[in-house]
Amino acid sequence: MRSLVAVDWGTTSLRAARIAPDGAVLEERAAPRGILSVPPGGFPSVLQETCGDWLADPAALCLVSGMAGSRQGWREAPYCACPAGFGEIARSLCWIEPDRIAVVPGLSCEARGVPDVMRGEEVQVFGALELLPARAARIVLPGTHSKWVEVADARVQSFATFMSGEFYALLRQHSILARTLPAEDGELHEDAFTRGVRHAQESGSLLHAAFSARTLALFERVPAQEMPSYLSGLVIGEELRAAAPGASELVLVGSAALTRRYALALQELGCSSRSFGAEATWRGLHALARTLENA
Amino acid sequence: MRSLVAVDWGTTSLRAARIAPDGAVLEERAAPRGILSVPPGGFPSVLQETCGDWLADPAALCLVSGMAGSRQGWREAPYCACPAGFGEIARSLCWIEPDRIAVVPGLSCEARGVPDVMRGEEVQVFGALELLPARAARIVLPGTHSKWVEVADARVQSFATFMSGEFYALLRQHSILARTLPAEDGELHEDAFTRGVRHAQESGSLLHAAFSARTLALFERVPAQEMPSYLSGLVIGEELRAAAPGASELVLVGSAALTRRYALALQELGCSSRSFGAEATWRGLHALARTLENA
Repeated sequence: MRSLVAVDWGTTSLRAARIAPDGAVLEERAAPRGILSVPPGGFPSVLQETCGDWLADPAALCLVSGMAGSRQGWREAPYCACPAGFGEIARSLCWIEPDRIAVVPGLSCEARGVPDVMRGEEVQVFGALELLPARAARIVLPGTHSKWVEVADARVQSFATFMSGEFYALLRQHSILARTLPAEDGELHEDAFTRGVRHAQESGSLLHAAFSARTLALFERVPAQEMPSYLSGLVIGEELRAAAPGASELVLVGSAALTRRYALALQELGCSSRSFGAEATWRGLHALARTLENA
Repeated sequence: MRSLVAVDWGTTSLRAARIAPDGAVLEERAAPRGILSVPPGGFPSVLQETCGDWLADPAALCLVSGMAGSRQGWREAPYCACPAGFGEIARSLCWIEPDRIAVVPGLSCEARGVPDVMRGEEVQVFGALELLPARAARIVLPGTHSKWVEVADARVQSFATFMSGEFYALLRQHSILARTLPAEDGELHEDAFTRGVRHAQESGSLLHAAFSARTLALFERVPAQEMPSYLSGLVIGEELRAAAPGASELVLVGSAALTRRYALALQELGCSSRSFGAEATWRGLHALARTLENA
């Protein structure tokens, strides 16, 4: 198999890895060159600046996942409709240089007349399946827009997006709650966090639960420095209430700081979880490259 | 009975009415002199500027409701604990000039270890009871922080706050959804609004439902100029999903623009409603004055 230059090109950052034919990650790089920072037509030169030495190998294959495939990115790669596995994704790659550089398409699905979309997470999902290993799982990718993914027969059957990270930031920075919150989030206070998770289960909607962050501060029942943890528990707890009622086992893929919070919240609700980090991206892109060679 | 100077002193505005002993509203005024605009110690002079001619009547009684009774207001009037009717509120008035000028306390209640509070809405609730007339009702006061109030035996038994107006503004102005929304809300598009209301019932959480405003715009299934109506339907629909599952009859108190939206959403869900506007405030303060005279 050829060597792989794997690129995870998101909205605010670019991460890349040089991966050996056997899947070993030989070197990793990150740059603050997300697609929002790239001028029109500037994508080839940013890739060259970041990974030019790796691409000097004429046999290297370069696979780019993430928002680089969006309308605002390098080249719009139309979404691949679910159910979708590596076969469907490999056939839908958007080749920028034939057999050399390709953008990985995101996935779309539809429920009750409303579409949902992801870009980049699909690679992490398949990476997690390789790491488990498993052909079926319920996988959660927490973040600004969390993705809840149902996998069966090694294909993504459906998924749903929850704007949890964004709602937390909106409440944290722009709502009335911001007035009684400290300037910095500080460390995680586990008791305040799990209290928030529990209250979210009982209250039935974040529209109502969020006001408890105001009244508990007003009545001085939660100290100000613990309030960011409580609010984080409310938002993550709301996501779990709606997305995972009665779930018993989930797979988490994301940063260590975030998967730790979700694991803690799930534990509070009696659900076990296993977590993966950035390795899922590289493993997923390597598996996709292998699929291409075997096609 | 004495004549009444009724004042609804909120965060951003001050509204006042001169009310005859029989309850007739003789004159109304409004000024952009909410408590946030009043310097420390400045409350007596702002009241004098706004209603000095009415207060020249030495027999006039002046009752002030709303955020003027908060910690940031004229004088902090401690919350009156539920269950509470006019008897409890009359006994808890915070007198600034004895038998002459009083601040009306807000209400507090507690559910599952978490307090909830209101200031100003309690007067509207009792005004609505007078207008119905009724001694029991389920009353909704939509707004930045909507209040859902359970009244039995002419006393507020409990209530719950939903931060619906604030969530709408956060999503409208500061979220990723803002990018695909027109600058102005424009008129209400009823079809897009009720579509949002229905989707909120099915999706189980605004964290998930809100993302549909992104994807429906992305796939051009809802025109941009209808998107503010759709988003408003999502938020109000989420409030109704959580607060009023299976409700058959509600009383709405608020601005005509807002009660119209709630009435439309409730109709979509098979719930009838009756609406009152600003008259509820004046009727409530008049009833409180009558309670004082009869005490």
